[in-house]
Amino acid sequence: MEKINQNGVTVWFTGLSCAGKTTLSLAVAEELRSLGYTVEVLDSTVVRQDLGKSLGFSKVDRDENIRRIGFLAHLLTRNGVIVLVSAISPYNQVRAEVRKRIGNFMEVYVNAPLEVCEARDKKGLYQLARAGGIKEFTGIDLPYEAPPHPEVECLTDLETVGESKEKVILKMINNGYLKPRDFSHSSAYFLIFKGRRKREEEARRKELIASINIYGNFRQ
Amino acid sequence: MEKINQNGVTVWFTGLSCAGKTTLSLAVAEELRSLGYTVEVLDSTVVRQDLGKSLGFSKVDRDENIRRIGFLAHLLTRNGVIVLVSAISPYNQVRAEVRKRIGNFMEVYVNAPLEVCEARDKKGLYQLARAGGIKEFTGIDLPYEAPPHPEVECLTDLETVGESKEKVILKMINNGYLKPRDFSHSSAYFLIFKGRRKREEEARRKELIASINIYGNFRQ
Repeated sequence: MEKINQNGVTVWFTGLSCAGKTTLSLAVAEELRSLGYTVEVLDSTVVRQDLGKSLGFSKVDRDENIRRIGFLAHLLTRNGVIVLVSAISPYNQVRAEVRKRIGNFMEVYVNAPLEVCEARDKKGLYQLARAGGIKEFTGIDLPYEAPPHPEVECLTDLETVGESKEKVILKMINNGYLKPRDFSHSSAYFLIFKGRRKREEEARRKELIASINIYGNFRQ
Repeated sequence: MEKINQNGVTVWFTGLSCAGKTTLSLAVAEELRSLGYTVEVLDSTVVRQDLGKSLGFSKVDRDENIRRIGFLAHLLTRNGVIVLVSAISPYNQVRAEVRKRIGNFMEVYVNAPLEVCEARDKKGLYQLARAGGIKEFTGIDLPYEAPPHPEVECLTDLETVGESKEKVILKMINNGYLKPRDFSHSSAYFLIFKGRRKREEEARRKELIASINIYGNFRQ
């Protein structure tokens, strides 16, 4: 498959543990790769093993971990890679810092209520955190600061993975990071098309009304 | 300029402080970028500020720093970027580890005698290290393990930067990471051409000798 001459961008998936960040980022990655885009998925848990062995889960250490992922994403982005970062990244300030550094950046708030995340948690991490077995667990004894202005918000307790994925891809198209024609087969394209059709229909209706008035006037 | 549909590779410049690693890697980067290649230069000193704030200069910490740069280079390489790493990286074992992990890898031994490196050192680091002001300085109180089988060796006390650069680019072409036709203007191309012409001349000479013998036989 021919590689696409693409622009780099970092799409940053933030949200509680078990909100669906990794599932969603992998779904987006799969679709984009199938079309020939060059995509790197950076999962904060995985990156931690390579870059943050000595880091803990205090605010200072979490911020440092996010900064390192941000540096990585920055290098990949400026070399034309589409980077999908999946990281709880609970603090607004460091996310804003990373956004500023990277430039080509989109924030996706992967939003599910805490009780839904807890119910989904197969590893029992929330349960352990509630019992005091894990300290400094976001949502339990550490806060999660919801992004005030994310480019996309996915309500993963209400939407299917496919629907959330389309919202992300649609926004990436609208922000100029993906080419609409690559998605002519997909439902994301139909959403754009629907938007366009709606605008066209409105324009046509206005024309029609205008023409009726003209004819009306003419015939008078 | 149209981007080139290239393969990723990491070219790893290793050698003593002031051996010429950064100068050489920047010269290679400049030439490749001018042709439209996507190139990232990772200087270990610079990367340290982003990924290794807490790391010192002991063997363990240096190895960890090299592993982190290796991880970075690996991600970029697998996304099609040409990565030029400039790092003293004095230990064979961790360089071998990084090579194995990255796969598309070339080692350039930037080789200048210690006394030449010391004479070049404008920052006075060697002098300070000799006076005991810097501990754990490679070449002074820590060893530098020369690569046993580097893909390229540049003798920077004997070669010009241009000559060293051509050796690197030529090897990158020969190993399939660069397209020869992109270098038809440069002297690196002439080196290949010279090699080819030599082989062609030898083949022609053989043909000639063979034809003389045939005619010789025919005329007898």
